[in-house]
Amino acid sequence: MVRIAIDAMGGDFGHYPIVEGAIFALKQKKFLPILVGDESKIAPLIPKKYRNKVEIVHCTDVIAMDEHATDALKRRDSSIYVAVDLVRQGKADAVVSAGHSGATMSLATLRIGRIKGISRPAIATFMPTSQKGKQTIVLDVGANIDCDAENLFQFAVMGEAYANKVLGCAKAKVGLLSNGEEATKGNEVTKAAYNLISQLDSFVGNVEGGDIFNGSVDVVVCDGFVGNVLLKTSEGVADTISQYLKSEIKHSPVAIAGALLMKRVFRKLKKQTDYAEYGGAPLLGVKACTIISHGKSNPKAIKNAMFQAIRFVESDVNEAIRARLEALND
Amino acid sequence: MVRIAIDAMGGDFGHYPIVEGAIFALKQKKFLPILVGDESKIAPLIPKKYRNKVEIVHCTDVIAMDEHATDALKRRDSSIYVAVDLVRQGKADAVVSAGHSGATMSLATLRIGRIKGISRPAIATFMPTSQKGKQTIVLDVGANIDCDAENLFQFAVMGEAYANKVLGCAKAKVGLLSNGEEATKGNEVTKAAYNLISQLDSFVGNVEGGDIFNGSVDVVVCDGFVGNVLLKTSEGVADTISQYLKSEIKHSPVAIAGALLMKRVFRKLKKQTDYAEYGGAPLLGVKACTIISHGKSNPKAIKNAMFQAIRFVESDVNEAIRARLEALND
Repeated sequence: MVRIAIDAMGGDFGHYPIVEGAIFALKQKKFLPILVGDESKIAPLIPKKYRNKVEIVHCTDVIAMDEHATDALKRRDSSIYVAVDLVRQGKADAVVSAGHSGATMSLATLRIGRIKGISRPAIATFMPTSQKGKQTIVLDVGANIDCDAENLFQFAVMGEAYANKVLGCAKAKVGLLSNGEEATKGNEVTKAAYNLISQLDSFVGNVEGGDIFNGSVDVVVCDGFVGNVLLKTSEGVADTISQYLKSEIKHSPVAIAGALLMKRVFRKLKKQTDYAEYGGAPLLGVKACTIISHGKSNPKAIKNAMFQAIRFVESDVNEAIRARLEALND
Repeated sequence: MVRIAIDAMGGDFGHYPIVEGAIFALKQKKFLPILVGDESKIAPLIPKKYRNKVEIVHCTDVIAMDEHATDALKRRDSSIYVAVDLVRQGKADAVVSAGHSGATMSLATLRIGRIKGISRPAIATFMPTSQKGKQTIVLDVGANIDCDAENLFQFAVMGEAYANKVLGCAKAKVGLLSNGEEATKGNEVTKAAYNLISQLDSFVGNVEGGDIFNGSVDVVVCDGFVGNVLLKTSEGVADTISQYLKSEIKHSPVAIAGALLMKRVFRKLKKQTDYAEYGGAPLLGVKACTIISHGKSNPKAIKNAMFQAIRFVESDVNEAIRARLEALND
């Protein structure tokens, strides 16, 4: 049974949605949630029939969102520190946190450690595509701001393994984000990365920003600076279109009728792009499953983060990454 | 009267939309279009009453879209070479081309030359925002793939001048695209650029991808690699949303009714984001106005490119850029 250490205190809305989400997940799947945080707050939220299916590890400190990630390494009684250390000690198989993402990254990287052959873990995220039910994995989206070609190559290996093992792609296609599809396109770093990633059969070459959303590849590789920009840009475009439609609708009674009728369609679109559907972003490259959830996670997001962690652990993707790198280095 | 040299042959659809667009513009504004290309093809398209309001400069060669930009420098009888050289010789004030953009950039930079103090010209583009009628200038969007801090600083100066002089901002706000708003965020190059751009009063600091579309700044500065990615990503998101809505509508008779009613709203949205409304992207940093239009430009796009060139020349933005750099270097 997969054991998941959950930072129960770190999210923007406190312990409530975290504990609730873990219980929701438990209703659908067998696993052991280990809730880390203030027992006096957590215990009362657990329904009687689940009390013997949940562990609580008590601690009182929490890293607040506005604190420095570097402080996290000294705060040994904080919920995220204790949750990560449960994995380090072999008492849990995965850690999930909706708390301070910088603290989660640093602690997971330093206390759990990196997979052999990986210099820097990367945050992977899932983008919706115009192909029904298909997502694109984009990595890195913020863990590593300045990357070299070797880093990007390792991201490609990790993305490929995640797509094949966790998402069940038959044969994942990997693209390198660039300013054009031709092999000659790219900046100095991506051009050097192109040569390295060419070792992978899964590599389809350079892809452009639009390819993230058309389903032509399963994995898109970029540095964390570009990944952050494209993530925020995508959200900005989607928000602007939706705001624009709303403001126009106000001016037109005919369009109001149209909008009401289209409501169901918009709701489905929202679901497609809602992070709660994914649950969180895996930090790939760490020796154990680490899921970084959104600070504003609702119980549904946490439930899906649990499911993601279970799939991650059961797929043994980390062993696949390690073995792949070892084979490539031979 | 502003004299505009127009590459009449280089676009994807040949000379027809280019000549038509120039005539459309002439119906609304006084200027001298100098159409460069095959006279036997261009002349028949010009209505009798406009024949003495247009110049034709004959040449027979055209740089095709799939040819190398470097060849352009040797092809002295090509429409874009001749058009650029009309500016070089002082016979035209601006050049507009919907042809090979790499060739246009190289020729304009090398034959017309750079503004004193500018190391590398940059392509600026206009992005729609959720604030009615307001656009954000983003530069560079593809001319310079690897940039240093000094390049980004010069882009900031050029963007500021363009916003103030050509778009008529009272006091343009300039932002540096980064992976977070805090001054400490950024990659090595943007962090160094942050310090340089801080010399400008107009600088509001780091901005994120979403700020391009919310109208909080007038100018967003980035390197050409990131600019290309964000442009293509934005198009990808907008296309995906529109495809998604269309495919959902097919499955639902109720939504079809809704969609019909909302048609007008969608049409207005399309207009907001249609490049034909802008006409083209100015190549800033060259000693004379150079407008790079889309290869697929229709007559309306070319008409708007003419208007943009007229505003550019009349605003004397290049002198403003030169003077600003001189003052900052003192």
